[in-house]
Amino acid sequence: MGRLAILSGGGALPRLLAEAHPDALRVVFKGVAHDMPDPVEVHSFEKMGGLFDALRSAGVDELVLAGAMGRPALNPAEFDAGMMAIAPRLLPALHGGDDAILRLIIAVFEEQGFRVVGAHEVLPALTVPEGLFAGPEPSADALKDAEKASDILLALSPLDVGQGAVVAAGLCLGVETLQGTDAMLRFVAETPAHLRRGKGVFVKAPKRGQDLRVDMPAIGPQTVQNAAEAGLEGIVVSAGKVLLLEAEATRAALEDTGLFLLGRVL
Amino acid sequence: MGRLAILSGGGALPRLLAEAHPDALRVVFKGVAHDMPDPVEVHSFEKMGGLFDALRSAGVDELVLAGAMGRPALNPAEFDAGMMAIAPRLLPALHGGDDAILRLIIAVFEEQGFRVVGAHEVLPALTVPEGLFAGPEPSADALKDAEKASDILLALSPLDVGQGAVVAAGLCLGVETLQGTDAMLRFVAETPAHLRRGKGVFVKAPKRGQDLRVDMPAIGPQTVQNAAEAGLEGIVVSAGKVLLLEAEATRAALEDTGLFLLGRVL
Repeated sequence: MGRLAILSGGGALPRLLAEAHPDALRVVFKGVAHDMPDPVEVHSFEKMGGLFDALRSAGVDELVLAGAMGRPALNPAEFDAGMMAIAPRLLPALHGGDDAILRLIIAVFEEQGFRVVGAHEVLPALTVPEGLFAGPEPSADALKDAEKASDILLALSPLDVGQGAVVAAGLCLGVETLQGTDAMLRFVAETPAHLRRGKGVFVKAPKRGQDLRVDMPAIGPQTVQNAAEAGLEGIVVSAGKVLLLEAEATRAALEDTGLFLLGRVL
Repeated sequence: MGRLAILSGGGALPRLLAEAHPDALRVVFKGVAHDMPDPVEVHSFEKMGGLFDALRSAGVDELVLAGAMGRPALNPAEFDAGMMAIAPRLLPALHGGDDAILRLIIAVFEEQGFRVVGAHEVLPALTVPEGLFAGPEPSADALKDAEKASDILLALSPLDVGQGAVVAAGLCLGVETLQGTDAMLRFVAETPAHLRRGKGVFVKAPKRGQDLRVDMPAIGPQTVQNAAEAGLEGIVVSAGKVLLLEAEATRAALEDTGLFLLGRVL
């Protein structure tokens, strides 16, 4: 077995991966903000051929992409031969959204012989495990609501919609759309009281077939806070498939608010 | 063929039905607000047996329930024999939500030999017909978005969720939940601009298998206004299955905002 490289974007995730894998090669990119501690190797998207060579020289055979990369401006005048070869496929992907770009990048690395893995594979402790993570035992109603929310997500999965849904007393109060979890939970919080018949739960899971190397659902203390403000009893996530970046702060938020967080095989 | 009775709750719909069917018997209920013009017969929910008799005496064989009835307080001391017979089934239905109550009421009338029909059957002109109702021709993108929104509604239908959805440039921006259309369109209006890649459409349709005598989707000028504020290109509804109560005001709102309204067989 060879060596792991962490291709780092912004946020805390790349650093956590590096701490768990001290031997991993740390790669950051010109024009992309990052919090990765030294030592890092700085590369540029214009010189992907150079990056491939550097990874091979360092004995890397496995890669993880972690953290937000944004969309740095590319200067075609600086493209090396490796990037020239990719460029014709990159332009259409640029119109297709972040997922399409990341899928292309993964495909390119795999063609070069690297194995691309997800952060949850490199550091399983980053995900919510099966069972009650913190908070009180869920009520029978909450488990029933969770099942319905999970059915909703499953039904929407083939349409590439919905990483989350809220169900209360059997009634759906929110389906996560492009705007994300926080926007959806704020929407639920605004539900007129006379329409509500129970507290309800928020269920979060990847879409069926979703490439977790590209886009992994995540929750944190803010999710707990928003779920509490939406009057929910708790949160249910797909065990092992949803990132929990700030475990201790999340645990504290659960204790503060009295909500539960449960990992289930969904 | 016998006579129609309009069992009237609040709002403009019962009056429109009465205008279209001048011979229909107009029934209103004690404790339920209504805008039905005279002559009306006043009945009370406590004396359903009396209502059955009165309908038969008037030669009624067909009923339409129209307008919001709310949940008037019932005084069991005033129940007649007909209501006494219904009461044991009514109590559980009261816990089940408005639809469950209405479904029970429809079942009770049918057991009594009356045919219960939907407002759209009594007055088809109240619905959006197939074709462009008003506004510009929808773009190819809008029709594609409408198809995806319609697929989303179809996928959710077995779960009793979703009479409406918004899709823009292939991305789902909103799924209608318990809070209704207006709340969903306001949510879509708040979508951060950087997430949007196209105008999009709002699609409204009954759930598959939804009893249109109990709950019929409706749109009006406010829907058009909200869709415009959400930045949408137009509205697509299931032809013949969505009520349009204020046709002229809706047409005016479409002209004002430049949105289209299209009826399609969904």
